Amino acid sequence: MALVVQKYGGTSIATAARIKSVARRVAKTYDGGDQVVVVVSAMGDTTDDLIKLAGQITKQSHPREMDILLSTGELVTSTLLAMALRDMGYKAISLSGAQAGIKTDGTYRRARIVKIETKRIMAELEAGQIVIVAGFQGITDDMDVTTLGRGGSDISAVALAAALGAKVCERLTDTDGIYSADPRVVPEARRLEGIGYEEMLELVTYGNKVMQPRAIELAELYNIPIRVALSFNDSPGTLIHGGVSMEIRNKVRSVAYDLDVAKITVVGIPDKPGIAASIFVPLAKTGISVDTIVQNASINKITDLTFTVAKDQMGDAMKVTKPIAKKIGAKDVVSDANLGKVSIIGTGMQNTPGFAAKMFATLSEKGINIELISTSEIRITCIIEESKVKEAVRALHHAFEVEA
Amino acid sequence: MALVVQKYGGTSIATAARIKSVARRVAKTYDGGDQVVVVVSAMGDTTDDLIKLAGQITKQSHPREMDILLSTGELVTSTLLAMALRDMGYKAISLSGAQAGIKTDGTYRRARIVKIETKRIMAELEAGQIVIVAGFQGITDDMDVTTLGRGGSDISAVALAAALGAKVCERLTDTDGIYSADPRVVPEARRLEGIGYEEMLELVTYGNKVMQPRAIELAELYNIPIRVALSFNDSPGTLIHGGVSMEIRNKVRSVAYDLDVAKITVVGIPDKPGIAASIFVPLAKTGISVDTIVQNASINKITDLTFTVAKDQMGDAMKVTKPIAKKIGAKDVVSDANLGKVSIIGTGMQNTPGFAAKMFATLSEKGINIELISTSEIRITCIIEESKVKEAVRALHHAFEVEA
Repeated sequence: MALVVQKYGGTSIATAARIKSVARRVAKTYDGGDQVVVVVSAMGDTTDDLIKLAGQITKQSHPREMDILLSTGELVTSTLLAMALRDMGYKAISLSGAQAGIKTDGTYRRARIVKIETKRIMAELEAGQIVIVAGFQGITDDMDVTTLGRGGSDISAVALAAALGAKVCERLTDTDGIYSADPRVVPEARRLEGIGYEEMLELVTYGNKVMQPRAIELAELYNIPIRVALSFNDSPGTLIHGGVSMEIRNKVRSVAYDLDVAKITVVGIPDKPGIAASIFVPLAKTGISVDTIVQNASINKITDLTFTVAKDQMGDAMKVTKPIAKKIGAKDVVSDANLGKVSIIGTGMQNTPGFAAKMFATLSEKGINIELISTSEIRITCIIEESKVKEAVRALHHAFEVEA
Repeated sequence: MALVVQKYGGTSIATAARIKSVARRVAKTYDGGDQVVVVVSAMGDTTDDLIKLAGQITKQSHPREMDILLSTGELVTSTLLAMALRDMGYKAISLSGAQAGIKTDGTYRRARIVKIETKRIMAELEAGQIVIVAGFQGITDDMDVTTLGRGGSDISAVALAAALGAKVCERLTDTDGIYSADPRVVPEARRLEGIGYEEMLELVTYGNKVMQPRAIELAELYNIPIRVALSFNDSPGTLIHGGVSMEIRNKVRSVAYDLDVAKITVVGIPDKPGIAASIFVPLAKTGISVDTIVQNASINKITDLTFTVAKDQMGDAMKVTKPIAKKIGAKDVVSDANLGKVSIIGTGMQNTPGFAAKMFATLSEKGINIELISTSEIRITCIIEESKVKEAVRALHHAFEVEA
């Protein structure tokens, strides 16, 4: 008998009726002969509603209290799903993060799982129970409730799959898999049957928000295959895996994009050691997440430094950067919030020349100006004007024959 | 430094604004120099809303899952109140029933507190924290969440007061104390400054639903004074206590009433041993709570047996009783759902003749027929026609000069 971990999130558990549908899907898996552990998110907008409620009390941050507050959303879903399964005649039990033995560090709002004490879950599984675990939450050694950050239920599911030795972690939602590009932008985009952990990691980091990057890292670390599929039919979805490629390599697997890019350039900096640190250490301390960083080659000991941030952090980033720029003798600080990024991703690229050249030529043919370039071994990203992003995605998807 | 336990419930924490008001009251108590432990119920209709949500999933009873579901309501309030206090610059921390060490047996939906492990609360109090405990809930030795039944937050508060050696348990709500009768029925009813545990117990059992009887029993057992007062002003309210009377005894202290009474009479039973058991054991097994029981004196070895139940249980009670009545050779089973009860309560009554006579005479003068009578050492209850109950309350309040 093998073990399957299934995770249901967001819209697929948004109403009582949908929770009953999820129960039927869970029961079907159990009837297939596997032990089943289910991880659930909060229903629909519950988490946002709880954040709003706290906002009526306070504008300050009280992370310990917030974590207990937010953890209630998943408790509600897990009990309702257990009830629905029991109504259908199945043995089912809900477990909170604490009851499921999910031990974390004490970093409220974005705790890291330290270990999972599986004794209770194992005992319930051996008793024939379908075990429903409230996702997104854990508990410290001092019995304080923590949450794992947005998308944390994905992390709960993969961590449980790893700790319990599951054969697969199924992530069931309202998307039927991972696509070669956003189908809303590229009509001919196709669903991938399989994708490697690293490609998937680049994909979610560079625009496709379908999954928590930490969940994919964890799956890679413990070599747990993740199937991303629809909650309410039997489509095979996409398998995220670490095995040998199931499709031809040396190809662009996916085109990703992100419209949430703002750029800040510190112009005319006298080039000397420590400049980057003097800017990025204060930004990090302010909690601003910097994405791409490009420093121009120095000309006459004068250089420019450009970096990108999410649009809603641009104002704060400017506030931090301006006084520093003055201090280090830079000429000016300029910003541009009307940017986006487009990326091509594929493990084949690292051994094959010509991908970058073809990408730049494709954008050039469309008259699209490239503001910044960043690359990894399996990804090339261009930052371009926001209004041109979707056109660029279509052109690149066609040029690299991703749909083939 | 003394310790005060305050419990806030229902309407006084129904909105974010009211939670902030509660925070100001808590802070004032803390500023007065006492350590403060606060117990909170769920906000407004939260518990009913959660029950409704579960009702959309199932018509069956899943008590373990239901208890986790319902426990979330108090978690929400406790975190919000802690946030509000922290915003005001106070050190405050919320604790779930589990974190507060409230250990119960495993009877879901109406668990009994076995013990309170106060280590965590004591540590937080010593660190200068105002401790907010989620009421109504506890945890078993197996880490399963339980709830204490409706009104369970009162029990949490009194139990914590007992375990922590509090000088008083303040129950702050939207009523400013215990009255000699319902002021909506008897305009001249007055607030009692003090009332004994036993009188209070009769009062809440016989109509005034202001508090959980189990909470009063517990307070009596550990001799914890309970102050019932308004949340949002400084009125002294009513002190429920076990000390020497603060007012003249030998008097009726309060007139209580209850409109929720249905009567079932099994007519013409051949009188032999075991008849009562043959009826009331099956009723108890069906979960029907029987209140007053009266068996007529047997005439020619034939007797009648009458008992009362809540109106919404009359149908079920009839279903259980009819076949039994047939089996034991009774002539008929008749029911009447249009009844209510009126009670006079006061510790003085047990040593003073004439209270019952005066009560019956008063009702008789008003032309009110008495259907059933039941008494305790400190209470006399008459079951009468529902439409006459309020008139009876006013007449008795006047006759016994309760307003004097």
